[in-house]
Amino acid sequence: MNHGVQTEDIAQLYSTLQRSICQTLEAADGQAKFKENRWENAIGSGVTCVLRKGAAIEKGGVNFSFVKGDVTPQMERLLGVKASSYAATGISSIMHPANPFVPIIHMNVRFFSLNTGTQWFGGGIDLTPHYVDATEASHFHRVLKNICDKYRADFYPQFKQLADDYFYLPHRSETRGIGGIFFDRLTPDTNVNFGQLLDFTRDLALMYPELYREMLQSGRNKSYSKKQKLWQELRRGRYVEFNLAYDRGTKFGFESNGNAESILISLPSTAAWEYKHPIRKDSEEEKTQKLLQKGIDWINH
Amino acid sequence: MNHGVQTEDIAQLYSTLQRSICQTLEAADGQAKFKENRWENAIGSGVTCVLRKGAAIEKGGVNFSFVKGDVTPQMERLLGVKASSYAATGISSIMHPANPFVPIIHMNVRFFSLNTGTQWFGGGIDLTPHYVDATEASHFHRVLKNICDKYRADFYPQFKQLADDYFYLPHRSETRGIGGIFFDRLTPDTNVNFGQLLDFTRDLALMYPELYREMLQSGRNKSYSKKQKLWQELRRGRYVEFNLAYDRGTKFGFESNGNAESILISLPSTAAWEYKHPIRKDSEEEKTQKLLQKGIDWINH
Repeated sequence: MNHGVQTEDIAQLYSTLQRSICQTLEAADGQAKFKENRWENAIGSGVTCVLRKGAAIEKGGVNFSFVKGDVTPQMERLLGVKASSYAATGISSIMHPANPFVPIIHMNVRFFSLNTGTQWFGGGIDLTPHYVDATEASHFHRVLKNICDKYRADFYPQFKQLADDYFYLPHRSETRGIGGIFFDRLTPDTNVNFGQLLDFTRDLALMYPELYREMLQSGRNKSYSKKQKLWQELRRGRYVEFNLAYDRGTKFGFESNGNAESILISLPSTAAWEYKHPIRKDSEEEKTQKLLQKGIDWINH
Repeated sequence: MNHGVQTEDIAQLYSTLQRSICQTLEAADGQAKFKENRWENAIGSGVTCVLRKGAAIEKGGVNFSFVKGDVTPQMERLLGVKASSYAATGISSIMHPANPFVPIIHMNVRFFSLNTGTQWFGGGIDLTPHYVDATEASHFHRVLKNICDKYRADFYPQFKQLADDYFYLPHRSETRGIGGIFFDRLTPDTNVNFGQLLDFTRDLALMYPELYREMLQSGRNKSYSKKQKLWQELRRGRYVEFNLAYDRGTKFGFESNGNAESILISLPSTAAWEYKHPIRKDSEEEKTQKLLQKGIDWINH
């Protein structure tokens, strides 16, 4: 099976989607432009698009990569498969807004192919509001459900639960935000064929910047206090904790000697930590803290 | 063997040393006082001393703990030993200064005892200057060597290399700072008896705040630019990367459901990340960056 050729087609689609994501987000920001950084190494190439100090987006990254290589013993152990070569392509993106009333958003879609014929899709989208807004959270989950439902009725409930479990900080006993969807090793079956799974990842990648445009619009001009800005910095600190201590993409990237600058584009430009930051009773901060839990039915919240 | 009783004696010494460290550092700062936070859980108790917004120390933590419990299968795997119960006590401390010309410092000493009679000491001290000063680095290493040499001639060269290897960020191919010493599973032998090893950890714990007092004195009033402050924030970012992605204490703490707030007292109050931060040729920043490498003989640098 020539898995390389097929992955190349998907890489081409993902590369086009990367440009489209950047264009939509640039238009949404209205000021800053993404800078393209092309890279190449022994196993492949990629483009890291970085937006800095926009009018509404403080730091944004959209990574595209396409890599192929030999399957190392370490990868075999990690993946639990036997194969001699692999090809992989994907987009991953994170936006950190300037305004604390706009959430942090993350999206990733990827395709993985082995020379044995084993192939799968993976990815996810999740939202990390500094202040949880139930209406926004419910809308976000409804949009995700609508896309999922186009393909399979059990996608949303299944992937929503996986997101709750994945985007979680065990040492804090709190979720990273209000979750979203997460999926891995998604393969075709009698209900959903290969082309439909590819369409599913495309739909997610196209919907992602549109959704964020709405969120930027509604939150970017809200006024905020110094205390609310500090709260944003502390929430960013939690984001850093997740990405460095738990995120599989970061771990895999570090272990495979990936480009550290591209991998860590997910980190905010600034973050803060405070020992036992006091949270006032019945404050907006306390309300948010209480909602950082697994298993919340956001659509009917 | 009643390993609990002996560990209790060492815990008492370490607890006294914690107070002494706090007193010396309070005097050195001259303004802020440490706040004592006592905690207790199923396996033991501890005191987390936190200093915030001092005149020279921006954030400092001195942790003491004394825990005992059953050896879990996970611990057996992690430690590569078979035993039914353990007792452990230690001090760990990190200081983040306000001024970029004062380094970040870290010190840890610990004692671990199993019911089987197996016991060892561990610990280390390392220095993370935002701007490397060769004279300061050389003095720091000379002081460490002098303490080591009191006990065994091969301690310093051995522990210096272990520190180079341990305080290292593989994804950046850079050391956390200018290293120091690191040791683990240190046991008595014909040359150094148990009491001497205990004295060795005591000497380190006593020397630590004295050394930092000197560094605060020499750097706290140096004037600095906005650019130099940003550089400090970026170096703090690297510190966060190490502590969350590699530090064994943090990992072990998270996995054993430790107190997250006490574990993460090691993080700076603020940190920054910038995609491919430009470093000017022949600048002080470039000089520092070039010195973040293993294997530098600091004493004769």
